[in-house]
Amino acid sequence: MVRIRMTVEYDGSRYHGFQIQHNANTVQAELEKGIQHLTGEDVSIICAGRTDSGVHALGQVIAFDTLTSIPGDKWKFALNSFLPADIQIIESSECIPQFHPRFDARSKTYHYIIYRQNKGHIFYRNYALHNIDFLDVAAMQAACQLLEGRHNFKSFCASGSSVKTFERSIYRCSLVEEEPFLRMEIQADGFLYNMVRIIMGTLLEIGRGNYQPETMMYIIAAQDRSQAGPTVPPQGLYLMEVEY
Amino acid sequence: MVRIRMTVEYDGSRYHGFQIQHNANTVQAELEKGIQHLTGEDVSIICAGRTDSGVHALGQVIAFDTLTSIPGDKWKFALNSFLPADIQIIESSECIPQFHPRFDARSKTYHYIIYRQNKGHIFYRNYALHNIDFLDVAAMQAACQLLEGRHNFKSFCASGSSVKTFERSIYRCSLVEEEPFLRMEIQADGFLYNMVRIIMGTLLEIGRGNYQPETMMYIIAAQDRSQAGPTVPPQGLYLMEVEY
Repeated sequence: MVRIRMTVEYDGSRYHGFQIQHNANTVQAELEKGIQHLTGEDVSIICAGRTDSGVHALGQVIAFDTLTSIPGDKWKFALNSFLPADIQIIESSECIPQFHPRFDARSKTYHYIIYRQNKGHIFYRNYALHNIDFLDVAAMQAACQLLEGRHNFKSFCASGSSVKTFERSIYRCSLVEEEPFLRMEIQADGFLYNMVRIIMGTLLEIGRGNYQPETMMYIIAAQDRSQAGPTVPPQGLYLMEVEY
Repeated sequence: MVRIRMTVEYDGSRYHGFQIQHNANTVQAELEKGIQHLTGEDVSIICAGRTDSGVHALGQVIAFDTLTSIPGDKWKFALNSFLPADIQIIESSECIPQFHPRFDARSKTYHYIIYRQNKGHIFYRNYALHNIDFLDVAAMQAACQLLEGRHNFKSFCASGSSVKTFERSIYRCSLVEEEPFLRMEIQADGFLYNMVRIIMGTLLEIGRGNYQPETMMYIIAAQDRSQAGPTVPPQGLYLMEVEY
């Protein structure tokens, strides 16, 4: 028995998220089905971050145990031919049997992409949030800075979520303008449920001038979901990398 | 009765091309259905270029006659709410009753996009050709130059096509590198069936070193489809603009 570790890309448009569900098309189900077709084994995949319906990944990390003798680095090529066109293994290797994609992760990096013009937006309807409001990007940048550090992020967690602690460390949060795109890049030791999407929704309120950048400090301090902005839709969100 | 002229964008992925067909989802059918829902009228749309299955447009031009009193510039907003998310009107106006989108066009511009890396290519599976071969882009550029001018382009026309003449004028053909993309931009007074896709397939053979750039002259002179390269797939092709 060996443990295999893989880095996976997927276009989340057609999937009800990563995690296996009854009667729903999920990324995990496609991966396990692919492995079943390739090796005949029924494996259980563990992932680094359970992405939601419509969310994409360029650097999801998964692991599973297998009895087959396919060398670690060959899994990538072998499995890709058994996967749909919107899921791709970009790296594979044998890892130590104790490796756990989620518990061993030091941090994760997500991007959220906004498409800021009317021309061509239909091509990004599954890949970005379409927004043509005037946005004060400098104000949004200033607010991003206030998010960095260790804080209680309860205000940015979907209500009803059961976690032990709402404390997380955001190592980096910044905006990159690449016309017609505006991209938020955020790296943290962990993310609460919907955290990136609520942060983006709050930044948009600041960009529109509805809140001042400093309001971000009060929203954090409130520890109250109702103080933050709305949850933006999933299609602009990408799990870019998991750092170990 | 007034004639309305519109500029239309569409993501061709879900459609069997522009032109209406029995039992197939087409862009024209969606547009005519949208107009039917909006006004109750059964109109017949004329377009500038009948794009094939999977081909996209950012600047298709259409026209139709209507008895409704919606002002020309308001059609855009009125009709967009009756169209699917992958078709969008970007401009509308009343035009002269004699305006014909195809016969009045002086030239058309198409782009063909190639995605040249493995990382992330799944996101472009419907929007670009995936190719990671080493390509001699300078050789391809040199061959593009040889295509410019008035020539008989029979070698670049899908066989079985019935046209009066194979003579066309290419005003501009050039390559633009924007990593990880390589884009061909081509403007001509008219295009033969599959002409852009056969030109791109031929340029790729030159990029791979299978033909010398000067071979392009002999391929043109041969007036024989079998001398040119293969027809590349439709998903990298975009009708960008129709010039009047």
